Amino acid sequence: MQKLKNKELKRLSTEEFKKAEKLPIVLVLDNIRSLNNVGSAFRTADAFLIKKIILCGVTGCPPNKEIEKTALGATNSVVWNYAKTTMEAIKELRENNYLIYAVEQADKSMKLNEIDFTTDAGIAFVFGNEVYGVEQGVIDESDGVIEIPQFGTKHSLNVSVSMGIVLWEFVKNKLNS
Amino acid sequence: MQKLKNKELKRLSTEEFKKAEKLPIVLVLDNIRSLNNVGSAFRTADAFLIKKIILCGVTGCPPNKEIEKTALGATNSVVWNYAKTTMEAIKELRENNYLIYAVEQADKSMKLNEIDFTTDAGIAFVFGNEVYGVEQGVIDESDGVIEIPQFGTKHSLNVSVSMGIVLWEFVKNKLNS
Repeated sequence: MQKLKNKELKRLSTEEFKKAEKLPIVLVLDNIRSLNNVGSAFRTADAFLIKKIILCGVTGCPPNKEIEKTALGATNSVVWNYAKTTMEAIKELRENNYLIYAVEQADKSMKLNEIDFTTDAGIAFVFGNEVYGVEQGVIDESDGVIEIPQFGTKHSLNVSVSMGIVLWEFVKNKLNS
Repeated sequence: MQKLKNKELKRLSTEEFKKAEKLPIVLVLDNIRSLNNVGSAFRTADAFLIKKIILCGVTGCPPNKEIEKTALGATNSVVWNYAKTTMEAIKELRENNYLIYAVEQADKSMKLNEIDFTTDAGIAFVFGNEVYGVEQGVIDESDGVIEIPQFGTKHSLNVSVSMGIVLWEFVKNKLNS
């Protein structure tokens, strides 16, 4: 087993990325404080060919040096826009027939290991602030809450890690269907 | 759907965590440069009840303020030790009958969506340096290379995100088996 060199990775150019068919997923960042987490969102969205990121409220936007440190150029490939409030973003997604799932710890949540992601509908996943999580008002407007089961002393996965896990679960379903 | 309060999360105390049955997984950090990524490894290992983390080479160790910023206390629950070289850690794991998988992009890699994780054997997952990845020497000593399929312009998921995704895949298999 030999590690692949960068030129062997079959990476898309930014132009090829823009033309490529995307997964019908929108990533909604609800007041994410850390620019590191924003950068990571771009990098993960690039890796998994995600359709769009919506940066809401206090979430930082490109161009930004701190975002770029983690995004490593993925801000040039992934489509994004800014919304003043997360509710505004949700309203527009709803009008465009997206299913909306908040990723949170809530009563009546769906556990990530029990969800059947085989739908052709567009899905928006909402990830919340590092301290306060997804706003309750946004949860009230969602089609459901997705919860990553946790078993330890903290129950507080890093939001970048949560984004990776939830998006991977969707990607995997597409790859294996 | 109501967000759960901290006291409703059924979080384990550190004492309960120490006594709880763990997943038979060891996380090997092969010369991870960023203390942020080390902290995230602890937090994810805490969430998923991982048996142990081995911090190798230049990887920072607790106690450390920067690690703690991301670990949020998970350094108190998760068992860890330090190994001067990753090869040394691998050798000891091998003697204790662990299967050893490097997480990398390599020829003859197994794609994460195609792996059947239903084994009772202990598994060690090796995650590599942010720039150089897992050492080729370590890959040569591994039972296999696991690759997270990526489709964008970078093929470079953040190592914390990769750890979350690979561990989740194992956790999910345990939950659903």
